[in-house]
Amino acid sequence: MKALVYHGPDNKSLDDRPMPELAAPTDAIVKVTRTTICGTDLHILKGDVPTCEPGRILGHEGVGIVHSVGAAVQGLAVGDHVLISCISSCGQCDYCRRGMYSHCTTGGWILGNRIDGTQAEYVRIPHAQTSLYRIPAGLDEEALVMLSDILPTGFECGVLNGKVQPGGSVAIVGSGPIGLAALLTAQFYSPAQIVMIDRDPNRLEVAQQFGATGCIDASRQDAVAEVMRLTDGVGVDCAIEAVGVPATFELCTSLVAPGGVVANVGVHGLKADLHLEKLWDRNVAITTRLVDTVSTPMLLKTVRAGKLDPRRLITHRFPLTQALDAYDTFSRAADTHALKVVIEVG
Amino acid sequence: MKALVYHGPDNKSLDDRPMPELAAPTDAIVKVTRTTICGTDLHILKGDVPTCEPGRILGHEGVGIVHSVGAAVQGLAVGDHVLISCISSCGQCDYCRRGMYSHCTTGGWILGNRIDGTQAEYVRIPHAQTSLYRIPAGLDEEALVMLSDILPTGFECGVLNGKVQPGGSVAIVGSGPIGLAALLTAQFYSPAQIVMIDRDPNRLEVAQQFGATGCIDASRQDAVAEVMRLTDGVGVDCAIEAVGVPATFELCTSLVAPGGVVANVGVHGLKADLHLEKLWDRNVAITTRLVDTVSTPMLLKTVRAGKLDPRRLITHRFPLTQALDAYDTFSRAADTHALKVVIEVG
Repeated sequence: MKALVYHGPDNKSLDDRPMPELAAPTDAIVKVTRTTICGTDLHILKGDVPTCEPGRILGHEGVGIVHSVGAAVQGLAVGDHVLISCISSCGQCDYCRRGMYSHCTTGGWILGNRIDGTQAEYVRIPHAQTSLYRIPAGLDEEALVMLSDILPTGFECGVLNGKVQPGGSVAIVGSGPIGLAALLTAQFYSPAQIVMIDRDPNRLEVAQQFGATGCIDASRQDAVAEVMRLTDGVGVDCAIEAVGVPATFELCTSLVAPGGVVANVGVHGLKADLHLEKLWDRNVAITTRLVDTVSTPMLLKTVRAGKLDPRRLITHRFPLTQALDAYDTFSRAADTHALKVVIEVG
Repeated sequence: MKALVYHGPDNKSLDDRPMPELAAPTDAIVKVTRTTICGTDLHILKGDVPTCEPGRILGHEGVGIVHSVGAAVQGLAVGDHVLISCISSCGQCDYCRRGMYSHCTTGGWILGNRIDGTQAEYVRIPHAQTSLYRIPAGLDEEALVMLSDILPTGFECGVLNGKVQPGGSVAIVGSGPIGLAALLTAQFYSPAQIVMIDRDPNRLEVAQQFGATGCIDASRQDAVAEVMRLTDGVGVDCAIEAVGVPATFELCTSLVAPGGVVANVGVHGLKADLHLEKLWDRNVAITTRLVDTVSTPMLLKTVRAGKLDPRRLITHRFPLTQALDAYDTFSRAADTHALKVVIEVG
């Protein structure tokens, strides 16, 4: 089969690889129909993710059709159309039983990281019963690729951790796919204000279309002053960090009101300064989270009910044979205006 | 009247000052019977608290007897025995109505900071109706001085923010009065482990007597290794920072398990390093809080029911005429083994 393989920093290619096989009775093999590229895949290609070794098939998002199932898998049958979760979870360890699937002792984020991933014609899914979701009939399967990672990440790490509430004020720093996923799902809770902050005018225009009540171009405006102006000098109840560099994290801690939350979503490679001398008496919380994907069934219901249209995040489509072009388009988003790039397989 | 007055960094004296007078119909004047010294008073004397100007009477803790009340004060009468909260709260602003009394727009921590405090024979208490608590008959009034600040602070900022739970594991970094207040009140929730970390063997011995399940002398032991050993390599569900320097905060972020909370209690004068490159995917929360004293009525009930004995925190007593000796004893705690030093007034 064809698969997009990581060969070390800045080195990837579309290779021929053997079909995956069931390795445990809890596994399933899924024929991938659509996958996509994540910012985390670009991190891997920079060499930032040491757990991902050369030779690994990349990708942790996708939809497909069950090709075979292990003897212990219940509730899934060959031919079922499924959504692949970016998080594999056994459902049985202490972390899984607390809903912290991200820290499953035999799972977590392993797809396209510690084991071969979804940017291929077929993929082996461990703990299939609790890591695949049957797709209800009548749903747009392409759109659901956005539910593998990006939408639960924006929702759980940003909106839920950030305690977005009716009438509240939200600032989202970073208007890329993850920030936009937080923007879309924050609106479930009817906040009064959602202010998007970015340095890319195109992404801010998209944010406006997606429901932002205000946009700040941090390349031209003082983001702190502007947020204070928009919030009567108080700051926001919730600041969502959706970039992953020290400056944007520190910006979030300057935007948050007393009693508010800084919800970190970004993947960080460096430490940040935490200004405890200013924050110790501000009654704030700072949260971090690797997505647990506990909200996947709920998000499927919101899509089915028309409360969420994940398709809005998809800007480009490529066949698997052009996966390298897909990466190129995604990684040059400032020029290509790419948000999410779907790779159509087979 | 006699009052302990701040005259700028490293400069204080016991002075004669005029009696305070009612300045608003919501005020009360309280005849102080007992007060105490807080670590924050030492911060003021180092010049760390610019809002506290020279000439200020220090102190934000105490019990006393109502001497006079303004026309708008209901539910309090001359002669009532009252507990003085370190936080003054109007009960009416947006913050007060959310229970965030610490950020009351006309109150908060103002006593012994922005207005004259309790280390005096008399003190004016603004917003008296919502900032004084009538002391139920039969309670040990001296012990209740510990309920002005230290016990609600350890409890709210440490135990409540830290989400201490039955069966959980807690590390408290700093075994001074605030850390010990957290230790005492954490036991309301029956955690499985409470590990105290300090560099003072005497304070650790006190912690053992107060119910710590383990003690780590960080001057001799590697605190991280020891906590990991005690928690099967996982870390603690809750790490409480009760010192207020970057190193102890950073230690807390190294002790916390995935899914856990770092609850900052310490007053910080410097920024700390936040290792987001290690924490971004750990599903942790870091909280800060200036005590709101919303728990004061609850803590009074625990004292009355014999679930909490605040007297254990009191090691020394001085009359107001020896207030300078009281400060000396409190500030040399490593030598004097002082925890809380009560100043008896009048």
